[in-house]
Amino acid sequence: MSEQEEFFAGISKIPYQPTAGPGDVMCFKHYNAEEVLMGRTMEDWLRFSVCYWHSFCGTGADPFGFQTLHRPWNKGNPMESAKRRLCAAFEFFTKLGVKYYTFHDRDMAPEGSTLKESNMNLDEITDLALQLQKQTGVKVLWVTCNLFAHPRYMNGAATNPDCHVLAYAGAQLKKGLDIAKKLGAENFVFWGGREGFLSMHNTDVSAELKHMANFFKMAVKYKEKIGLKCQFLIEPKPKEPCRHQYDYDAMSVIGFLKHFGLENHFKLNIEPNHTTLAGHSYEHDVVMASVFGMLGSVDANTGSPDLGWDTDQFPMDIRNTTMVMKTVIEQGGLQPGGLNFDAKVRRESTDLEDLFIAHIGAMDTFARGLRNAVRIIEDGIITDKLKERYSSFSHGLGQKVEDGSATLEDMEDYIQQNGEPNVTSGKQEKYESIFNHYI
Amino acid sequence: MSEQEEFFAGISKIPYQPTAGPGDVMCFKHYNAEEVLMGRTMEDWLRFSVCYWHSFCGTGADPFGFQTLHRPWNKGNPMESAKRRLCAAFEFFTKLGVKYYTFHDRDMAPEGSTLKESNMNLDEITDLALQLQKQTGVKVLWVTCNLFAHPRYMNGAATNPDCHVLAYAGAQLKKGLDIAKKLGAENFVFWGGREGFLSMHNTDVSAELKHMANFFKMAVKYKEKIGLKCQFLIEPKPKEPCRHQYDYDAMSVIGFLKHFGLENHFKLNIEPNHTTLAGHSYEHDVVMASVFGMLGSVDANTGSPDLGWDTDQFPMDIRNTTMVMKTVIEQGGLQPGGLNFDAKVRRESTDLEDLFIAHIGAMDTFARGLRNAVRIIEDGIITDKLKERYSSFSHGLGQKVEDGSATLEDMEDYIQQNGEPNVTSGKQEKYESIFNHYI
Amino acid sequence: MSEQEEFFAGISKIPYQPTAGPGDVMCFKHYNAEEVLMGRTMEDWLRFSVCYWHSFCGTGADPFGFQTLHRPWNKGNPMESAKRRLCAAFEFFTKLGVKYYTFHDRDMAPEGSTLKESNMNLDEITDLALQLQKQTGVKVLWVTCNLFAHPRYMNGAATNPDCHVLAYAGAQLKKGLDIAKKLGAENFVFWGGREGFLSMHNTDVSAELKHMANFFKMAVKYKEKIGLKCQFLIEPKPKEPCRHQYDYDAMSVIGFLKHFGLENHFKLNIEPNHTTLAGHSYEHDVVMASVFGMLGSVDANTGSPDLGWDTDQFPMDIRNTTMVMKTVIEQGGLQPGGLNFDAKVRRESTDLEDLFIAHIGAMDTFARGLRNAVRIIEDGIITDKLKERYSSFSHGLGQKVEDGSATLEDMEDYIQQNGEPNVTSGKQEKYESIFNHYI
Amino acid sequence: MSEQEEFFAGISKIPYQPTAGPGDVMCFKHYNAEEVLMGRTMEDWLRFSVCYWHSFCGTGADPFGFQTLHRPWNKGNPMESAKRRLCAAFEFFTKLGVKYYTFHDRDMAPEGSTLKESNMNLDEITDLALQLQKQTGVKVLWVTCNLFAHPRYMNGAATNPDCHVLAYAGAQLKKGLDIAKKLGAENFVFWGGREGFLSMHNTDVSAELKHMANFFKMAVKYKEKIGLKCQFLIEPKPKEPCRHQYDYDAMSVIGFLKHFGLENHFKLNIEPNHTTLAGHSYEHDVVMASVFGMLGSVDANTGSPDLGWDTDQFPMDIRNTTMVMKTVIEQGGLQPGGLNFDAKVRRESTDLEDLFIAHIGAMDTFARGLRNAVRIIEDGIITDKLKERYSSFSHGLGQKVEDGSATLEDMEDYIQQNGEPNVTSGKQEKYESIFNHYI
Repeated sequence: MSEQEEFFAGISKIPYQPTAGPGDVMCFKHYNAEEVLMGRTMEDWLRFSVCYWHSFCGTGADPFGFQTLHRPWNKGNPMESAKRRLCAAFEFFTKLGVKYYTFHDRDMAPEGSTLKESNMNLDEITDLALQLQKQTGVKVLWVTCNLFAHPRYMNGAATNPDCHVLAYAGAQLKKGLDIAKKLGAENFVFWGGREGFLSMHNTDVSAELKHMANFFKMAVKYKEKIGLKCQFLIEPKPKEPCRHQYDYDAMSVIGFLKHFGLENHFKLNIEPNHTTLAGHSYEHDVVMASVFGMLGSVDANTGSPDLGWDTDQFPMDIRNTTMVMKTVIEQGGLQPGGLNFDAKVRRESTDLEDLFIAHIGAMDTFARGLRNAVRIIEDGIITDKLKERYSSFSHGLGQKVEDGSATLEDMEDYIQQNGEPNVTSGKQEKYESIFNHYI
Repeated sequence: MSEQEEFFAGISKIPYQPTAGPGDVMCFKHYNAEEVLMGRTMEDWLRFSVCYWHSFCGTGADPFGFQTLHRPWNKGNPMESAKRRLCAAFEFFTKLGVKYYTFHDRDMAPEGSTLKESNMNLDEITDLALQLQKQTGVKVLWVTCNLFAHPRYMNGAATNPDCHVLAYAGAQLKKGLDIAKKLGAENFVFWGGREGFLSMHNTDVSAELKHMANFFKMAVKYKEKIGLKCQFLIEPKPKEPCRHQYDYDAMSVIGFLKHFGLENHFKLNIEPNHTTLAGHSYEHDVVMASVFGMLGSVDANTGSPDLGWDTDQFPMDIRNTTMVMKTVIEQGGLQPGGLNFDAKVRRESTDLEDLFIAHIGAMDTFARGLRNAVRIIEDGIITDKLKERYSSFSHGLGQKVEDGSATLEDMEDYIQQNGEPNVTSGKQEKYESIFNHYI
Repeated sequence: MSEQEEFFAGISKIPYQPTAGPGDVMCFKHYNAEEVLMGRTMEDWLRFSVCYWHSFCGTGADPFGFQTLHRPWNKGNPMESAKRRLCAAFEFFTKLGVKYYTFHDRDMAPEGSTLKESNMNLDEITDLALQLQKQTGVKVLWVTCNLFAHPRYMNGAATNPDCHVLAYAGAQLKKGLDIAKKLGAENFVFWGGREGFLSMHNTDVSAELKHMANFFKMAVKYKEKIGLKCQFLIEPKPKEPCRHQYDYDAMSVIGFLKHFGLENHFKLNIEPNHTTLAGHSYEHDVVMASVFGMLGSVDANTGSPDLGWDTDQFPMDIRNTTMVMKTVIEQGGLQPGGLNFDAKVRRESTDLEDLFIAHIGAMDTFARGLRNAVRIIEDGIITDKLKERYSSFSHGLGQKVEDGSATLEDMEDYIQQNGEPNVTSGKQEKYESIFNHYI
Repeated sequence: MSEQEEFFAGISKIPYQPTAGPGDVMCFKHYNAEEVLMGRTMEDWLRFSVCYWHSFCGTGADPFGFQTLHRPWNKGNPMESAKRRLCAAFEFFTKLGVKYYTFHDRDMAPEGSTLKESNMNLDEITDLALQLQKQTGVKVLWVTCNLFAHPRYMNGAATNPDCHVLAYAGAQLKKGLDIAKKLGAENFVFWGGREGFLSMHNTDVSAELKHMANFFKMAVKYKEKIGLKCQFLIEPKPKEPCRHQYDYDAMSVIGFLKHFGLENHFKLNIEPNHTTLAGHSYEHDVVMASVFGMLGSVDANTGSPDLGWDTDQFPMDIRNTTMVMKTVIEQGGLQPGGLNFDAKVRRESTDLEDLFIAHIGAMDTFARGLRNAVRIIEDGIITDKLKERYSSFSHGLGQKVEDGSATLEDMEDYIQQNGEPNVTSGKQEKYESIFNHYI
């Protein structure tokens, strides 16, 4: 293997060509990294990240079919493949022009037959990662530990009925935090794919939630001990693979964190495909997390609203990206989080170039969302209408409600004096029409 | 009108006839109020309650059709009808043998043209209610204010963009709390049917949540002031009529309450038809609320899992009631809450006797659930298996996890010494088969 | 009442102003009726129609709240209101610039205490309708009979267990067909809102389906007898108000029609909000009906994909309208069908102008969809790629498969000679990116 | 390898022990094969079948985790494993006491590097199967070809855009039909897991449907040619792995078959987990298929109604099995179809005995359903109520509706003479209560 090996031969750095034609899919038509909008570059607003597992480890296997994706970097023994894969990934990041990536410990380096061996593998491959990061300037948006794929975790990791398994998860997590520090990860994500249940009959929910909380507390303690500066993030998902996962959606996680006194140590990594599986609209959890001061990062993908499982498609709907970017701008950006493409090319998209096409399409979709959101905010028409709509809370009784000093007796007095309120149109269709103007 | 008027002529007190045949639907075959199970009467465990709105105010109208239910108590002017309706209801409660009822302020007495007139109507009708309660021994399980049906509330009550509407809701709530005290209600419920949004475009979510929290705080303050002893309950519902309601499910409400420091003043009233609309299994929110110490009461109804709206059917599935009653027994009962039949006869069930048939069928279904749950708990087979499953947390490292003293370093040490954990079957099908033994 | 009464004072004919600003919602920015695209005017491609029930009879009541919409045309006794409403509607059609409307018999004229009286009411009001049609040039896209709202139909109309009710439905239908002829309706729609069941326990599905088929056959016979030239359409809906409706989706209706030999007499009226409730994507049933040669008309509305009931919102998503219009163009247009706005302003949209804003917003959304679809088709990039994708069926073995002469033995021979086929990328993301170019 | 090797050591033939206790899960408490109900043995009514793929080939891998199930029969090279697996299966069938099994061609024998090699493998293994069938008396309920797992089928088999792939599917199918004949299969199933689309953008729906129909016609022709006597069955599924599958549900397939003139050659194999994914109730497609004379066989499994993917759980709900068996009895049985357990133990159910426990639990659940259904039918209370409900169609106008001679004019005359029909209660709750008596 040679680091100089080129995996995406014939593909150069993806250019910005705003006037390219409909069939030109290997260039950006909207994403112009250095262009400044509202005081920041597009790159800074969007903080795009490529995910390692789908794009470099994905095989195309699904529950009904075998591997369809055969990648040139999978050659040699597992460790050789792992290095080749990493080089391919950095070639991809660089050609695509994305500054961040994300990975699970077990994506990066193969699991060994013992924890020790796994850790050694991880050390060896992350040495290469560190070197490639320095060479290219690409950084780690977040690391996470895969605590769900190995059979030992089938009944849960932090919520396993057997403490031995929990211990294994803890040991693995310890190493994951060390790696995060080594690579300068800006965030660390917890996704509890097996933290939940398939059946209430064999589950002690109360015990499992307590164990999960204590597991998080150990992580916080160790993070502080080693001086790891990154942001901890929990990624909600309602179900799949479990029938029910404890981190169901943004509000469930917020409730859990506050119940166990963990709310100051974690924010949320929202994946819209998980949000829609929980029965919400695409942008819902992004908005709710932001409102509660808990929006840390976004897994920029999409599902199909008529499907009941996680399809992790590349986001291609401009309405959705406009809503997300409007929220992001309104909270002042996502940093240290970003927009991570937790998305996979369809298993039928077997060409190597499909990886580029998919990312470019999604980046342009988010760039259009950003441009739209900026225009909406700079024009101020929707904002002003909204401000006017809530204006009664800026004075008199409304102000007392705002500052918490109003009482039910005040309310009764007010109605006795002022009688029935006027009915005021909510004007939803007007808001929708104005919004459509920007799409 | 005469209080002696009989509305359910030909129907006597519903008897317990355990050997009745398949076609006998006007007797209990399983519910035997005075029978003692695990140290309590069935009546005490089940604390059944009839809801006033569906069973006495329901018209059978739906979004696609007009009124189908024409009740004999609707005669005379609104206040005369209201009194007749109340007498009919108490006749029903007594003949059915149920000790509790629930109502909205506006079910009980017609809304007047001013708040003052509405309050006078309510005073007059609740005088009669008090008298009927004393005569019959039937009590109020909970009262709630209808803050969603009047057009003034179309854009929300506590979350309305216009503070004038919030004031009206507050004034109405004040009276509702007074009435709760007057009638000795054991609980008071808040259901926020319009507290949410149809469109994010015209909504300031952050402001609305704060207003809702402050509204609840005013309620707590006034409750304390007047010495009202009842339990406050919030009833989650994910959507309908709004596209999104803030009280989405149990965990959402718990998150909200904790965020605003309200968790000691409220528990939850769980309606399984709302739980399933939120994408959970029937018993999910009953269990989750109980685990978090927040299960206050249950609205005993059901939906059809293939439908996406609230059908408020009478619960007829014994598996479901067994799961609910198992949780209720395990937390030591629901008191001061109960099982309120927030259920309506189908609009096609136009016979007066259908009201009895439906309640009897549901009460027997819950009685079977109770009997099953008692057998499960008394046999102890499932409990023992579960205890064994989590036994590793009762000593050594497990105990340290339990008491919060374990660290990631402990975990790593443990794995270095003990290696890979054994894979242990979750045995879901075995649990299901044992459970089925009791159904 | 005076026909000259103006209900939408201050609103003139809605102009086309392509350069209007974001806040200008009372003009068309995209819909230019007379503009010619692919050889037809936009008006001809789109064939917009306003529905009478939502826009002129809707009250804003929902299952949780009372009337919010108080329209100026509801004044005087029911027949006076009916006339005023009709005049208001024609004023609206004219100012909006829409050439078609649709109605139920019972929207147009109030039901009397007998069938005879109802028919007389209908005669009287349709005399006025005919006069207004002549004055304005506005025409009837389709008529339908309301066979679901009256309590007599609560257990079904054509599928009622009581033949007396079926007879009533037949009598009402006869008059409906007469009215369709009188007013020159171009189509006649059957929507079976109560043709289905809430419970299998009390339902003889087999008998009900046969009765429904025979009911349709009577309609066909009477249509031929009176020389009514319009197209018959069935509108699928999966559920609501019933738990299950027999006309579940496009394929269900096609199966039913073919089973009973009715397929030559009916086409389908597809409502996308019904399509999504059946678990399909927005455009699915439009495409499937078209593929089977059965797409007759479209009820142009939308739901929210996260909701499980029919919200009948105005369609505002350009992606969706692009997909629909692409199918419409590919099948050569919808005539004699059209795009009927079976949509209602939200109950909170209480201003009279909201009716205009909503229709304008939706018309512009479809106009953008049409413009996009035309560009896609005229550019031919997607079409060419698709043609290439299936090119193996134009010769050799592929041609034999096409013409039905190939056998399994041919297949085996082919594989013995040619071996394993190549894997070819499906290139979904590339298609999506190209499609996005046009949005 | 030795055919005498015992894989389920320590497990004898599962006995019928009706008085066994709650924790006894390795015996039947309800299923008594030879017991006669309504003139047939339970075995004859139920015609249970074990599926080969889940129970003998399943690995426990899911999209988020690796293999958890390590079976003792997987030893040696692929062909040795295949033989060992087959022996294990027949040991299982025999000990469980089930007379039928089902399999895909590729479950039974490994795919070779060429079609010829695959066919040779299949020949060799089915020789053994034939021998084991003769030894044990166990028979093939149905065979099916796996036309979805191999990467060549990723874009469809019969609906693949490349005719070369369709040819491969045809060649494979030819062999599958030969094998069906060889083993005396009573049915042959077509499940079109990849016959559908992920995106409309890259799909020519019309062409694909025609190809699929022609593919079925070739199968019919070849079946007739070789004198294969079995019943052809299509198994509907709405989605997964595709976004949309053409065989969406029972009615979709019926529509398709009738459109292409195939309805006399196929019946349906209904899988309730697929039915619920299509938005229907558990029993819906069983009933609809039966009503249309198209119910051929049932894949006896279940999903969780709150999940949006196929979980293939063992059916454990007695209400569901009662509904299914009532329909089966009413149509006179399922023969030559049966109840095939297309169900898999959870991936966490790693003990070998879990395979038995799961099947026993499900068989007992269906046996209880059968017993309940028999009692319902023999008592006749529900049937009589239903007959009475539709009695108006047995004479007069009703009879004319039944025989198709009634006209709309008859209807109108009838109403003019008889006026408004009476409103009759649907009595759903009464039916539910009576039904519950039998559960």
